[in-house]
Amino acid sequence: MLMNSMRLFTGMQERRLDALVATMPENVTYASGFWAMSQWIRRGPQAYVLTPVPALGEPVVIASSGLIDLAADPNVWVKDILRFGKFVIERTPDVPLDAHDSRIAELMAQDDEGEAVGALVKAIKMRGLQRARIGVDEIGILPQYWDRLAEALPDATLVRAADVFRYARAIKTAEEIRRLRRSAEIADLSIQSALAAAREGATEMDLARAFHGRTIAEGGLPVLGCIGVGARSAMTNVQPSERKLARGDVIRFDVGGRYRHYRADIARNGVLGEPNHKLAHYHRAIRVGLERAIAMIRPGVRAADVFEACVETVRREGIGHYQRSHVGHGIGLDGYDAPNIAPSSTDVFEEGMVICVETPYYEMGFAGLQVEDTLVVTRDGVESFMVSGTELRVV
Amino acid sequence: MLMNSMRLFTGMQERRLDALVATMPENVTYASGFWAMSQWIRRGPQAYVLTPVPALGEPVVIASSGLIDLAADPNVWVKDILRFGKFVIERTPDVPLDAHDSRIAELMAQDDEGEAVGALVKAIKMRGLQRARIGVDEIGILPQYWDRLAEALPDATLVRAADVFRYARAIKTAEEIRRLRRSAEIADLSIQSALAAAREGATEMDLARAFHGRTIAEGGLPVLGCIGVGARSAMTNVQPSERKLARGDVIRFDVGGRYRHYRADIARNGVLGEPNHKLAHYHRAIRVGLERAIAMIRPGVRAADVFEACVETVRREGIGHYQRSHVGHGIGLDGYDAPNIAPSSTDVFEEGMVICVETPYYEMGFAGLQVEDTLVVTRDGVESFMVSGTELRVV
Repeated sequence: MLMNSMRLFTGMQERRLDALVATMPENVTYASGFWAMSQWIRRGPQAYVLTPVPALGEPVVIASSGLIDLAADPNVWVKDILRFGKFVIERTPDVPLDAHDSRIAELMAQDDEGEAVGALVKAIKMRGLQRARIGVDEIGILPQYWDRLAEALPDATLVRAADVFRYARAIKTAEEIRRLRRSAEIADLSIQSALAAAREGATEMDLARAFHGRTIAEGGLPVLGCIGVGARSAMTNVQPSERKLARGDVIRFDVGGRYRHYRADIARNGVLGEPNHKLAHYHRAIRVGLERAIAMIRPGVRAADVFEACVETVRREGIGHYQRSHVGHGIGLDGYDAPNIAPSSTDVFEEGMVICVETPYYEMGFAGLQVEDTLVVTRDGVESFMVSGTELRVV
Repeated sequence: MLMNSMRLFTGMQERRLDALVATMPENVTYASGFWAMSQWIRRGPQAYVLTPVPALGEPVVIASSGLIDLAADPNVWVKDILRFGKFVIERTPDVPLDAHDSRIAELMAQDDEGEAVGALVKAIKMRGLQRARIGVDEIGILPQYWDRLAEALPDATLVRAADVFRYARAIKTAEEIRRLRRSAEIADLSIQSALAAAREGATEMDLARAFHGRTIAEGGLPVLGCIGVGARSAMTNVQPSERKLARGDVIRFDVGGRYRHYRADIARNGVLGEPNHKLAHYHRAIRVGLERAIAMIRPGVRAADVFEACVETVRREGIGHYQRSHVGHGIGLDGYDAPNIAPSSTDVFEEGMVICVETPYYEMGFAGLQVEDTLVVTRDGVESFMVSGTELRVV
């Protein structure tokens, strides 16, 4: 199971919720294993998961009929599914169906609940929750649909509760850690392929094609691909262009795709030929800062303290004016899960958090430097997911 | 410019709006050229474009400081930009900056407006719209933020208006048509690469890697990759697995990525070895149905009439029980733009619409068959974006 049920129920209890409704794609997948494709690749299509507290019954998935094959996937652990909307799937008579197709046939034989909110209301009533206090993830539900939900459930109390999912998602389950480890590894290998394509005259697009091509070959899908060379590397979200690599150019990668829906986000630098003094000196400073941060992280340590020590280290090691808004964040189905490693953060590290730690430095007219590792917080420290080191790669 | 300004202003006039606020990523890009990356790859990050009617002033982009390099991109045609949030970008003294970096420096020199809603309120007041009737795209703004906007503008009237963008986006501009044509072409070429990898023992994942690899090589990014073989091809949203291709297996592709943010969505079938009678007969029926639909489309024709004729043709040509919820849809920044080619649709074709026409047929125990072409509606008919034919490809 992807979901950390214990933590989700703790979060629900703290908010005195009888049930929680997932509405954004990350939370729907998290709460059920259901990858509601149209919701992932578009804005607007609705899919929900109703999760009552254990005493009040089993969860229910609400899926559009057009996605029923994905709701019937063996990776979906929620058994009760309501479908809505007209959709036609035929069946050859007298041909035995495999388990997946049989499940599709079973779900298509159920009533069409008409539309998404109607189906959700039915699920809530099926569980006897029409007078309950229900948390609704407010990010994925359209406001018109929220209004209709409230009208259909005049005796229920609906509260915005996306933060409960954010709280639960911060501590990863074993299956999430496996996927995140592989996702980080794919990104790391993809940087190696891009660096192998780095030569004088190669364009940023050439590097990007090598990067994403390797991600595809390894079974991932591209998402984040900030790849810039020379002075362009200083642009925070640099998108690959036809700019050609020249001797002395720095290359910055801030990149990562998805593997089985889980994100990667790592960063490395290369340089074509020997680095000049400033580049080598500054890059060393951000590396030492990163190492300092990682060395501090273990359960019970405050994220704000790590931020402080990290920035202080980069300053002392060579970039005296170094400033940052944050030096890292959690990662999971979303690229920015809790915790947030920032000066005002009240987050404390806990075992099972998967974290990106980073020390980016952007200087227009010079370069963008950035090292970012992904790691899991263990009982007494961290375990890195990275297969390569953070050194400036001379190519 | 991506935006069809005339059509947007017509839509605003029909709704009696003084201004319109884009909040979902597709509409933000559409209304300004600003690709607000974090909003595209996550749920929650806010970016807006305020577009007053022409008499009431120029549009304003609201961008997080961390995305300012993308807001400064030369493809962004909106000149007034407000930024919010702390973010640090350094600058080497005495080194001349190029035009893009100069623009970044100029925008970073502006005040930090604190947070997204505060910046939007400032933009609205800058244009003297604090008593205006303002349409807000309700899909991308968080409900908490809508509430704060309403509180900060007690004399304004805020109405949900995502439909105005949907209306405008239905008729593409020349630049949108260029991108959509290339996006469809990339998907078509990618199917050819996947079919070139189709042989006995190749897996669905092998085909998917060949498909996405070609998309990357052509400068696109993967999005939709439903690729299934044999009986698995009947699953509507089949996701590539380790299932191996065997003699006689049908292969179904329902696929398409993005090219410069514009979507592709096309479908084709292959078969390993000669097709059996049923496969050949049914596939011909859906092809003739598709051809019938395409032959009817021209400005002034009702989408519902095309649906009717298309389904009728497939039935007459060999699948007597053929049923569908729709046989096509518009495509643009979103994979499902207007119009909708469905029985209850009130849409009428207009010049400049870009449309996917499709006749899928899913039969569990047999196969999924699907042909889907993308085309633009011209003054007196259509022009196809496809480089390959719809025939069943024997490999």
